[in-house]
Amino acid sequence: MTTTLSPVTLKAVDGPGQPERTPALEDLYRGFEQELLVPLWTEIGDLMPTSPRPAARAHLWRWQNLLRLAERSGDLVPVGRGGERRAIALANPGLGGAPYATPTLWAAIQYLNPREDAPVHRHTQHAFRFVVEGEGVWTVVDGDPVAMRRGDFLLTPGWRFHGHHNQADQPMAWLDGLDIPFVHQVGSAFFELGPDEVSDRSTPARSRAERLWAHPGLRPVSQPGPTPSSPIAAYRWEHTHSALTEQLALEDEGHPGVVEPGHAAVRFSNPTSGGDVMPTIRAEMHRLRPGATTATRREVGSAVWQVFDGAGTVRVGEREWQVGRGDLVAVPSWVPLTITADARADSALDLFRFSDTPIFERLHADRVQVDDAPA
Amino acid sequence: MTTTLSPVTLKAVDGPGQPERTPALEDLYRGFEQELLVPLWTEIGDLMPTSPRPAARAHLWRWQNLLRLAERSGDLVPVGRGGERRAIALANPGLGGAPYATPTLWAAIQYLNPREDAPVHRHTQHAFRFVVEGEGVWTVVDGDPVAMRRGDFLLTPGWRFHGHHNQADQPMAWLDGLDIPFVHQVGSAFFELGPDEVSDRSTPARSRAERLWAHPGLRPVSQPGPTPSSPIAAYRWEHTHSALTEQLALEDEGHPGVVEPGHAAVRFSNPTSGGDVMPTIRAEMHRLRPGATTATRREVGSAVWQVFDGAGTVRVGEREWQVGRGDLVAVPSWVPLTITADARADSALDLFRFSDTPIFERLHADRVQVDDAPA
Amino acid sequence: MTTTLSPVTLKAVDGPGQPERTPALEDLYRGFEQELLVPLWTEIGDLMPTSPRPAARAHLWRWQNLLRLAERSGDLVPVGRGGERRAIALANPGLGGAPYATPTLWAAIQYLNPREDAPVHRHTQHAFRFVVEGEGVWTVVDGDPVAMRRGDFLLTPGWRFHGHHNQADQPMAWLDGLDIPFVHQVGSAFFELGPDEVSDRSTPARSRAERLWAHPGLRPVSQPGPTPSSPIAAYRWEHTHSALTEQLALEDEGHPGVVEPGHAAVRFSNPTSGGDVMPTIRAEMHRLRPGATTATRREVGSAVWQVFDGAGTVRVGEREWQVGRGDLVAVPSWVPLTITADARADSALDLFRFSDTPIFERLHADRVQVDDAPA
Amino acid sequence: MTTTLSPVTLKAVDGPGQPERTPALEDLYRGFEQELLVPLWTEIGDLMPTSPRPAARAHLWRWQNLLRLAERSGDLVPVGRGGERRAIALANPGLGGAPYATPTLWAAIQYLNPREDAPVHRHTQHAFRFVVEGEGVWTVVDGDPVAMRRGDFLLTPGWRFHGHHNQADQPMAWLDGLDIPFVHQVGSAFFELGPDEVSDRSTPARSRAERLWAHPGLRPVSQPGPTPSSPIAAYRWEHTHSALTEQLALEDEGHPGVVEPGHAAVRFSNPTSGGDVMPTIRAEMHRLRPGATTATRREVGSAVWQVFDGAGTVRVGEREWQVGRGDLVAVPSWVPLTITADARADSALDLFRFSDTPIFERLHADRVQVDDAPA
Repeated sequence: MTTTLSPVTLKAVDGPGQPERTPALEDLYRGFEQELLVPLWTEIGDLMPTSPRPAARAHLWRWQNLLRLAERSGDLVPVGRGGERRAIALANPGLGGAPYATPTLWAAIQYLNPREDAPVHRHTQHAFRFVVEGEGVWTVVDGDPVAMRRGDFLLTPGWRFHGHHNQADQPMAWLDGLDIPFVHQVGSAFFELGPDEVSDRSTPARSRAERLWAHPGLRPVSQPGPTPSSPIAAYRWEHTHSALTEQLALEDEGHPGVVEPGHAAVRFSNPTSGGDVMPTIRAEMHRLRPGATTATRREVGSAVWQVFDGAGTVRVGEREWQVGRGDLVAVPSWVPLTITADARADSALDLFRFSDTPIFERLHADRVQVDDAPA
Repeated sequence: MTTTLSPVTLKAVDGPGQPERTPALEDLYRGFEQELLVPLWTEIGDLMPTSPRPAARAHLWRWQNLLRLAERSGDLVPVGRGGERRAIALANPGLGGAPYATPTLWAAIQYLNPREDAPVHRHTQHAFRFVVEGEGVWTVVDGDPVAMRRGDFLLTPGWRFHGHHNQADQPMAWLDGLDIPFVHQVGSAFFELGPDEVSDRSTPARSRAERLWAHPGLRPVSQPGPTPSSPIAAYRWEHTHSALTEQLALEDEGHPGVVEPGHAAVRFSNPTSGGDVMPTIRAEMHRLRPGATTATRREVGSAVWQVFDGAGTVRVGEREWQVGRGDLVAVPSWVPLTITADARADSALDLFRFSDTPIFERLHADRVQVDDAPA
Repeated sequence: MTTTLSPVTLKAVDGPGQPERTPALEDLYRGFEQELLVPLWTEIGDLMPTSPRPAARAHLWRWQNLLRLAERSGDLVPVGRGGERRAIALANPGLGGAPYATPTLWAAIQYLNPREDAPVHRHTQHAFRFVVEGEGVWTVVDGDPVAMRRGDFLLTPGWRFHGHHNQADQPMAWLDGLDIPFVHQVGSAFFELGPDEVSDRSTPARSRAERLWAHPGLRPVSQPGPTPSSPIAAYRWEHTHSALTEQLALEDEGHPGVVEPGHAAVRFSNPTSGGDVMPTIRAEMHRLRPGATTATRREVGSAVWQVFDGAGTVRVGEREWQVGRGDLVAVPSWVPLTITADARADSALDLFRFSDTPIFERLHADRVQVDDAPA
Repeated sequence: MTTTLSPVTLKAVDGPGQPERTPALEDLYRGFEQELLVPLWTEIGDLMPTSPRPAARAHLWRWQNLLRLAERSGDLVPVGRGGERRAIALANPGLGGAPYATPTLWAAIQYLNPREDAPVHRHTQHAFRFVVEGEGVWTVVDGDPVAMRRGDFLLTPGWRFHGHHNQADQPMAWLDGLDIPFVHQVGSAFFELGPDEVSDRSTPARSRAERLWAHPGLRPVSQPGPTPSSPIAAYRWEHTHSALTEQLALEDEGHPGVVEPGHAAVRFSNPTSGGDVMPTIRAEMHRLRPGATTATRREVGSAVWQVFDGAGTVRVGEREWQVGRGDLVAVPSWVPLTITADARADSALDLFRFSDTPIFERLHADRVQVDDAPA
């Protein structure tokens, strides 16, 4: 990952609008190199494509493989100061071996052994956890213990101290999502160590943040005004499930609500603003009825999808995979995506999605194109 | 610039929190590589530094060198379809030879021969021109001819068709600034060719956009509402100069207005919102009285400064340069910057600055730290 | 209420800065009258007081009296086209007999007999219902049937068609709140009749709007973006009660959340923006522990409070009342308010409050002053 | 203006939906009166009209009459503490003799004798001055002297100390506009006396605020962020005139810019936000070519127009007037307005307009309807 001083090296290229290769041109290019300059005319095709040509690739990671390697790491790798977390990140094959699921998003499996702790720290990167299976870990965010259970979506917005501890006799693994690649690229990373131990080892079913904020359409009068990130520490599966169930029921009754036929979706939102949960990350849960197919969509910006339940097919550009619980797919910018729920399944296909869309919306660079659904 | 499929390669490292190097660990790491995974514990130091540790370096480019090479390019390199522009970009020594002045910003010298044209195209990247010397070129933005003269700051917001033509008998060179690296990194680049010829070759002193919008505190009733980018096609030097002059005069009279003693500064702004001229780029003009020194500031985000007039010293982190007209300095994120105007000069030091600050402000990631002025 | 052409009539007054009363002055004033002019110097004391001197008065209306008269109206007054609603409004004693609880807010008791209907119409005035007792009525808002039950807060934002029907064998009465006086004053009232019958007589426990929107921190992906008013048709008592209960429990545990000691409060909010439920009306539920007293507050803008449960004392300026279930108090702008919960009660004092605060906040005219609690 | 305690008095009315007049009904109404209650069914026609039925009337005030009476007041009425200002307000014939041009807007002629002072004070009401003729007065706003000249539009946003002094040997009169009626109605008026004398009697041609802020598209870096009101103390006629001239020139050249054929218009705006100059008041200058006619428009909210130059016809609802320099017209909410410039005139018709539109836009209650131009 560390970039070393690398002098510019240029080579004349052929093609429309390119200068004739002559000794004089070579001489000019050597002059560019000496002064650390690069001409536009040799780079424009790559820098300014007709539509986004991301270096990132569409790729699938199987949860079972992640889990197997995480368990093995549980045997060999300690959790403590220095390493900080036993997290193993998806490395997109197009991004030069960097631990980046996409150019902006980090996705990792994190693993804690029974009775194990992860020390307290904070950073400007925004983080969330999504629990595809298991329970027993509490993440303590600014002193507030937050239980982690299957289906829960948990927030650790930037610059909040947080540590984890596993109270159970089984190990626990979950998905971590952060904006590490984006923050690394633009240079806004700050980090600070906290105590080695979490301050509060109590194990309440609900966090104080939820007790204060997780009431539909209600906010405490003592805390007016918008905050950049959501104050809701945990979005519980019971609520997500019931919201998705209602959308499909409304569809059955002939009322609006679903995104498209057979496709229900909710966005996790910031109750103080109605916007996304954190400034750089959008998170949603999608549910497809058995046999339902999404329209084929391209979006500016990248996303990571994780199957929460059920089975189906995910098609990204030219790639297509049969997916099941926990499987993760990286979707690069502007690559067409189609998802189909297994028609023979008796339950729906539930998928968790997170993306960098808020970055583009805030910069007025968002674009979406819906193609015709595949035949 | 094109990234090829590169498999992950991991090596065990030593240090606090690192697992013991054993055959089993090597075996685990091979497993990570096969599954395209990278552990956090080996990368965290680089990914999550205590404060930003940008790959980009502080660097100076001398205008005279740029100009010499641009002139030579004028002899050897055509301007036309394919290459599109005779623009030569600053390549930050820390960024692997890419034509990036900083991780987010592109800065280039563009050069047109007498009577020469640059063909029409548009792209989602936001662009501006700043003219350090010369005149005679008109840039035609969505059909509106905009004269370019010394000291002028001109806008080409994203997705506006634009072409240039030089009406003069002398060549002309100027600074181009864009958000190409940012757009390339996040994958939001769209590009479209326009006609080979600009539609309107007239040469008015003021663009229609200025005639409609460049009146202090006034906006046309026919165009209400905010627009993401400023509708002012050109910010003329006469206004910038007079605003800076007034700030120093107010300081002489004991009234507020300057940023700090001897330091006047104006921000080019979007009259429909009061915000920055374009969603990703902030642009300002600064003036330092002879002998004046700025406080030492660090900012999250990167900037490029160009000397417009006068002489002085620019100190960025450990580097320090004596600078004069046209010289360009790249300032990486969170590296302390101090600028001093030559005390023996009889005129002020004027500097143009552009930065990616709007990105951070819109994502609530902006930070500034003012250190004590250097002894 | 209708204002007839009334010629200006002026009389010279005495006092500081007043001109000497002379025949010439009288002559001048007759000239003013002829030209429909009024001098500032005779009016400034009333128009520009040192602090707000509202015409409205603090006043108490007893629910039992309202109910008795509403029941009598049930015998004598039909509900149908023309009269539209059997609603009886509070007329503030300071406002010249107009049906205004305050200069901006309308508050009325509405009453429906068993099996009775109120016809469908819509208007730009924003409306809500708050149910202090009873059930059995459904209000149908743009075709969506919304059940009304004790403790529920229900919305009918501007320009939504709505009608009511009582499905029960008992009559039902509730509180209506609107911005009728404000809209009447500024002249933005539009009104349109709908069908005489509601379109959907079904009686679901929850409205479709709730099924889509009343999930904590979740919003349907199919409906992005903010809306001026909340899409939540009904805020159910179970949620309000639980949010208040949690705040007091957090206080018991030593954590923040309450407004002040012993005083919990939630604001009904718009999940698409985090702001108030409707552009002109703020609505909140407050709970005071037995014996708790609020600080004495003055606020710019007016409010109406209704006791939902419990007993206590309300002091507004010089007036003070012992209050119980359903009692209504008008609080004019900038008049100090103190509320105390009966110390001998075994249950808390719950109060519903609505105010015009959003008008002032959006116009940057909001002010609050907290005085010391009364000895 | 002072409202005294007035008991409710009700009378049964006839009409659709009205209860039968019986002794029992009369008895019920007496009960309402005792409890300070008013039924909706007798008031709904007035309170909830199909479209706004403002009490205010369209009315014209002739500048020559105002000026004559103002001059006479100059002889008889002192300016000083108590009366504060020699201002004479338009009293709309529909508003019961109150000094209100419309339900929300105050418009007055203010008059200062040679060498006369108006003492310093401040208030939450937002104020502006518009100068239809004359010069020689400086208004000192928070210590900054602002020259007043023909065509200038000057701001005194809420809560800024301000006083005036006439440095000339001639008297001066101008138009004052404020939101006094709105503030009085909603109860947000605060007022504070300042020194009897202005602090700075210097007479610069431009205020410090202008020197800092009145540069097209430029803002001082030392003052970032939006402010509720514009920091530009004076919008000078030279800029307004040139902006209007350019719009008509662009129209001649076949380019967009004017509101409609022959009708140029600029809005005075807040450079820190792009919005209106003050939270409650919109101000614009309009120019109609000789013979040009505006489309007939209705708008929610009220406005006052003053002829600045030229001659023409103003039609408001059923009323129509021939108007000339200085004449003032009140336009109530939703009453259709058409303005025609005298076809025989050799110069354009220039009109200043101010309205309460920002109130409605911020509350999402704005509506506009453009009817066909009159035959």
